Amino acid sequence: MKHPNTVLVMAPDLPARLFTDVTCERLRRIANVNPDLVLTEFQSPGARAALARAEVLLTGWDCPPVDASALAAAPYLCAIVHAGGSVKGHVTAACWDRGVVVSSAAEPNSQPVAEFTLAMILLAGKSAQLIERRYRERRAAPDLRAEFPAIGNYDRTVGVVGASRIGRRVIALLRPFDLRVVVSDPYLDANGARELGVELAELDDLLRVSDIVTLHAPSLPSTHHLIDRRRLGLMRDGATLINTARGALVDEAALCDELVAGRINAVLDVTEPWVLPADSPLYSLPNVVLTPHIAGALGVELRRLGTSAVAELERYARGEPFQYPVTRAELDRIA
Amino acid sequence: MKHPNTVLVMAPDLPARLFTDVTCERLRRIANVNPDLVLTEFQSPGARAALARAEVLLTGWDCPPVDASALAAAPYLCAIVHAGGSVKGHVTAACWDRGVVVSSAAEPNSQPVAEFTLAMILLAGKSAQLIERRYRERRAAPDLRAEFPAIGNYDRTVGVVGASRIGRRVIALLRPFDLRVVVSDPYLDANGARELGVELAELDDLLRVSDIVTLHAPSLPSTHHLIDRRRLGLMRDGATLINTARGALVDEAALCDELVAGRINAVLDVTEPWVLPADSPLYSLPNVVLTPHIAGALGVELRRLGTSAVAELERYARGEPFQYPVTRAELDRIA
Repeated sequence: MKHPNTVLVMAPDLPARLFTDVTCERLRRIANVNPDLVLTEFQSPGARAALARAEVLLTGWDCPPVDASALAAAPYLCAIVHAGGSVKGHVTAACWDRGVVVSSAAEPNSQPVAEFTLAMILLAGKSAQLIERRYRERRAAPDLRAEFPAIGNYDRTVGVVGASRIGRRVIALLRPFDLRVVVSDPYLDANGARELGVELAELDDLLRVSDIVTLHAPSLPSTHHLIDRRRLGLMRDGATLINTARGALVDEAALCDELVAGRINAVLDVTEPWVLPADSPLYSLPNVVLTPHIAGALGVELRRLGTSAVAELERYARGEPFQYPVTRAELDRIA
Repeated sequence: MKHPNTVLVMAPDLPARLFTDVTCERLRRIANVNPDLVLTEFQSPGARAALARAEVLLTGWDCPPVDASALAAAPYLCAIVHAGGSVKGHVTAACWDRGVVVSSAAEPNSQPVAEFTLAMILLAGKSAQLIERRYRERRAAPDLRAEFPAIGNYDRTVGVVGASRIGRRVIALLRPFDLRVVVSDPYLDANGARELGVELAELDDLLRVSDIVTLHAPSLPSTHHLIDRRRLGLMRDGATLINTARGALVDEAALCDELVAGRINAVLDVTEPWVLPADSPLYSLPNVVLTPHIAGALGVELRRLGTSAVAELERYARGEPFQYPVTRAELDRIA
């Protein structure tokens, strides 16, 4: 087993949040690393000295781009192990040209998003948040049969837009429940859908049949306002749109119109802009659950990313392939 | 296969909610039944005439007690198939003395409660509702790191009070998540806990170590105010108490004090009384999620109970044992 020279590159306060004492001990056993040295740039003499010996960069949020200049200063660099979801911000074309191998924690990072989505699907099926607000406001029990005759998580249809990493995890988490799952994804074929145990549909059809629609598509030029005014109009009366992906996927003005009219409901963990202006009507609508981008890894959930990155580093040190490798080709179509 | 004479006894509008057209067709194939005749009492001449031939009572909510007088009028009665959770209200000692076999839909009825509980556990772990309220109130993003430094569903402990039907289902649903599960139940031993894949603890210890405590104990004289002032005091600062079971399990005055102080959080689907008085502080506390008894089967979820009851009736007609039999002995210790 190698004991690779490893350098941390991330926001200075991040290691304490990624690594418990136990994980830090494990990191020291695997690598030749100084956990107290955390680079935030690649220009200073100190950074250059660290790069000169580095075989692995253990990266996290706020890692600057590993560009040609940084690579020139790091003649032994072979691997970038990222303790975060996306490597798009710092793994440059020059890294791929050089043949640096890359791993990310996108898979463990997807877990909290899928969990949050599952919880919101189950509560939306019961109109729980709508009922809760009504109960609190009236200080008297609503007449559930009259006001919410068709609620419940049974024989309902959930539409998953995007069989992405997170979309697939949501599908897996939905298995124990009596819900029909329909998926739309331009990269998924009938065989793929069968393997996932779901029905494949065109996006328009998915929107027409789903009681709950949850977005897990990447934010790309081609998916900008994927859910536009016309498509919002296809959603069933009383349906719920869940967005834990990216605000840009939805035409927010059109969504606002539907929500203000009370025709559909929404759970929005992301918006455009992601912190809404103070005068946004979304802050006060009873049919909107609005959270400030909390579905992803937060708080103690960062430890899952740290633990995963250290496990990846250990695989590298043993000469094994990464469990979660990132390839140049897939970067073009993922978030 | 028998074609048993079967009579419906339940609230008059219930069959339409329990049985879809498909289920109703299946019921007719299995039994000699008039789905349009729904008894609500056992005294009238019409009811007496139906009882005189009945081999099976297919019962639902509001079924009156099947007492000695009703049994005397039903000489052929052999089975009660209940399309609801508890048979305590209508299956009397006289039924057991007569040897009537009994089935309930307690198992399918437990599913929505467990689902609701799971959703609330996942959201409580993220402080989602607390964050949501703060975001909406301020119309500006909270500083999550400063205000909610230790949130997240990772390495957290969930305490399940009661390895009841619902408690066990909650435990099963928690399996895909990175959460430690501790259970307290006077009827569960170390082997039973091992089979469930959980840690066994005394209730006091469970309350001390859990980030989230969820109640699934039956409401019995011995469990009245099981969670009293002293035990609430054992809960960790910032912990969440989830009650989807019965209001009587918790000393509500003591709980109110803890919640008003903001020391702990609560998700209360049941309270005592179950619709709170209009001046209850629980209606307006930011750290309380308050719903009017919606965790159980509602709306389309009633179809799950109807489908289950018809499947039980089919087993009876085939001479097979019930999948969900109810015995006299277990009635004493379940809800």
